[in-house]
Amino acid sequence: MDYPRRQALVAAQLGKSVDALLVTHLPNVRYLCGFTGSSGVLLVKGNTAVLFTDGRYTAQARNQVQAARVVIGKGSPLLAAAQVVQRRKLRKIGIEGEHLTVSAQAALRKALGTGTRLLSVTGAVEKLRMIKDAEEVARIRAAVDLGATLLDTALQSIRPGVKETEVAAELEYAARRAGAEAMSFETIVASGARSAMPHGAASVAPIPARGFVVLDFGVILHGYCSDMTRTVHVGKSSAGDRRMYEAVREAQQAAIDAVRAGVASGQVDRAARSRLRQAGLARHFTHSTGHGVGLEIHEPPRIARGQREPLQAGMIVTIEPGAYVADRGGVRIEDMVLVTDTGCEVLTPAPKDFIEL
Amino acid sequence: MDYPRRQALVAAQLGKSVDALLVTHLPNVRYLCGFTGSSGVLLVKGNTAVLFTDGRYTAQARNQVQAARVVIGKGSPLLAAAQVVQRRKLRKIGIEGEHLTVSAQAALRKALGTGTRLLSVTGAVEKLRMIKDAEEVARIRAAVDLGATLLDTALQSIRPGVKETEVAAELEYAARRAGAEAMSFETIVASGARSAMPHGAASVAPIPARGFVVLDFGVILHGYCSDMTRTVHVGKSSAGDRRMYEAVREAQQAAIDAVRAGVASGQVDRAARSRLRQAGLARHFTHSTGHGVGLEIHEPPRIARGQREPLQAGMIVTIEPGAYVADRGGVRIEDMVLVTDTGCEVLTPAPKDFIEL
Repeated sequence: MDYPRRQALVAAQLGKSVDALLVTHLPNVRYLCGFTGSSGVLLVKGNTAVLFTDGRYTAQARNQVQAARVVIGKGSPLLAAAQVVQRRKLRKIGIEGEHLTVSAQAALRKALGTGTRLLSVTGAVEKLRMIKDAEEVARIRAAVDLGATLLDTALQSIRPGVKETEVAAELEYAARRAGAEAMSFETIVASGARSAMPHGAASVAPIPARGFVVLDFGVILHGYCSDMTRTVHVGKSSAGDRRMYEAVREAQQAAIDAVRAGVASGQVDRAARSRLRQAGLARHFTHSTGHGVGLEIHEPPRIARGQREPLQAGMIVTIEPGAYVADRGGVRIEDMVLVTDTGCEVLTPAPKDFIEL
Repeated sequence: MDYPRRQALVAAQLGKSVDALLVTHLPNVRYLCGFTGSSGVLLVKGNTAVLFTDGRYTAQARNQVQAARVVIGKGSPLLAAAQVVQRRKLRKIGIEGEHLTVSAQAALRKALGTGTRLLSVTGAVEKLRMIKDAEEVARIRAAVDLGATLLDTALQSIRPGVKETEVAAELEYAARRAGAEAMSFETIVASGARSAMPHGAASVAPIPARGFVVLDFGVILHGYCSDMTRTVHVGKSSAGDRRMYEAVREAQQAAIDAVRAGVASGQVDRAARSRLRQAGLARHFTHSTGHGVGLEIHEPPRIARGQREPLQAGMIVTIEPGAYVADRGGVRIEDMVLVTDTGCEVLTPAPKDFIEL
């Protein structure tokens, strides 16, 4: 990863608005210097950077950190960074307002005294992270490919009476065996009436004899996340079930067809929503259409109602409309796509035909 | 869970310092009303509470939330809560300064206008959560017992050449099969020289022919976490390796022996540290001795150098000293213990004898 370039881009973006940026959000720290520990603060000033961490990470920081000096402190990395800010007489420090807590800001203010101002900067690093470089695209492709192989494993374990957690167990075991560092979020296996909960994490509920099963899962591979959803039907489906499935599938395709660099992301959301409206399902589509994926499972941009921000080539986002009818069930279909100048490339290599198990 | 009692205790603790508390930290939301979704804000005022969430959680909130009215909003739950604060003309609102971000605070201020003051309240709910009630102790015991069964699974899979991630895969699969909702943190399998990294998450590195393997893992069961560490040695150990292991084991026992309601937690840390000093390992013990465990894997109290806060009966904490020597390896041994008036009960049912595989 080209850390010096990333740091230079952040510094250029901030210009003279601040003397330095205090990066406290760990995925941003990783993005800018490679450090993956759970305690670290990066001070970026022009083309120099210093990583502050603690004694648990001495060896790890030495192995991982690039393009930054490493300082191992005894106490809080944030306060260690504050000391350097004071020593260098920096007067305007950018903080990540969307991540730094009110208490941490207060501690920082106290440590810095009145000579230094804190300016809340939002999305400085996230803005860069939205556009994936070639190495990131390659890593995400690998994560998505690994993730997609897990669908078959899950399907083989789904049958009435099996607990949702058992399906998740098989899927996660296969992920680990294939080299995943972790799942990118709590695996969703939501069956029968539970499928009407968009975020129905696998429970000990047994899969019923009849109904939808929503499978939403992802892996982390070399730091990058995958995210996909497929919905299958256990037992004989009704014509209404199949209509609902097809409407969601068509909505998902309509949204994919709308993706292109320069298009407002709200436009993509609208494409999905209007197809569901035709099917009378718009009010059952209770979340947004998608989100960026990278070092984090949810990162900018949002593909949501009214969003005017244009998509850009190199963004990788999910497209995941759904419909959820209380006491009946729900359907969601989700792929990850890479935005290009002429449209998009669907990264997720898995069929979307209606499956009755 | 007795949610009305918990809410009453929070309200009593805050007294007249605020008109209401805006709870934004999700484990605190769960603790006070049972909701487990990823988007929710709880407004607690005297003996009434309102949970704000979004359309993804309509069904889930209906099923889970107790002792609170549920409001499903279209936008941000935080801003929905702000509307209610304004409508009820509340003037002093407590916010969770250790969790609310600077940006969220700014958005809240803007929504509330100048008529309402925000007061940063730290640890109001965490203070209650430190002392586990009978139902919580039972859940944590169950999580700890499940967690401890995984050690054998891991040991059976450890041999030279096997990847650390494969050991993690076996352990996590067994956890899921046994009903765990998730692992409570990224499983640590750190072998050979990697064992000198206290937080060495399982990597694709193969287990070497000779050296320590640190296994640190935990599960979540019915919402509550477990956490344990054992260190084993692969291949023939040296006398120095065995001395290091025994020193850590004795330090851990010394810390356990120091635990009792009324004792300052720093005293427990000192007990571990002074035993390691005798063995010449104090400077290789680079982290604190322990932390509380409950709905979160790390929660108050901290068992660390200089902490004066007295332990209280009903706290559940880890006791986990270690020693880490760069390029050679590390040892950590960790149990969870329940603090009592006369000492403590070690909850983790696993032997700590030196194991050579």
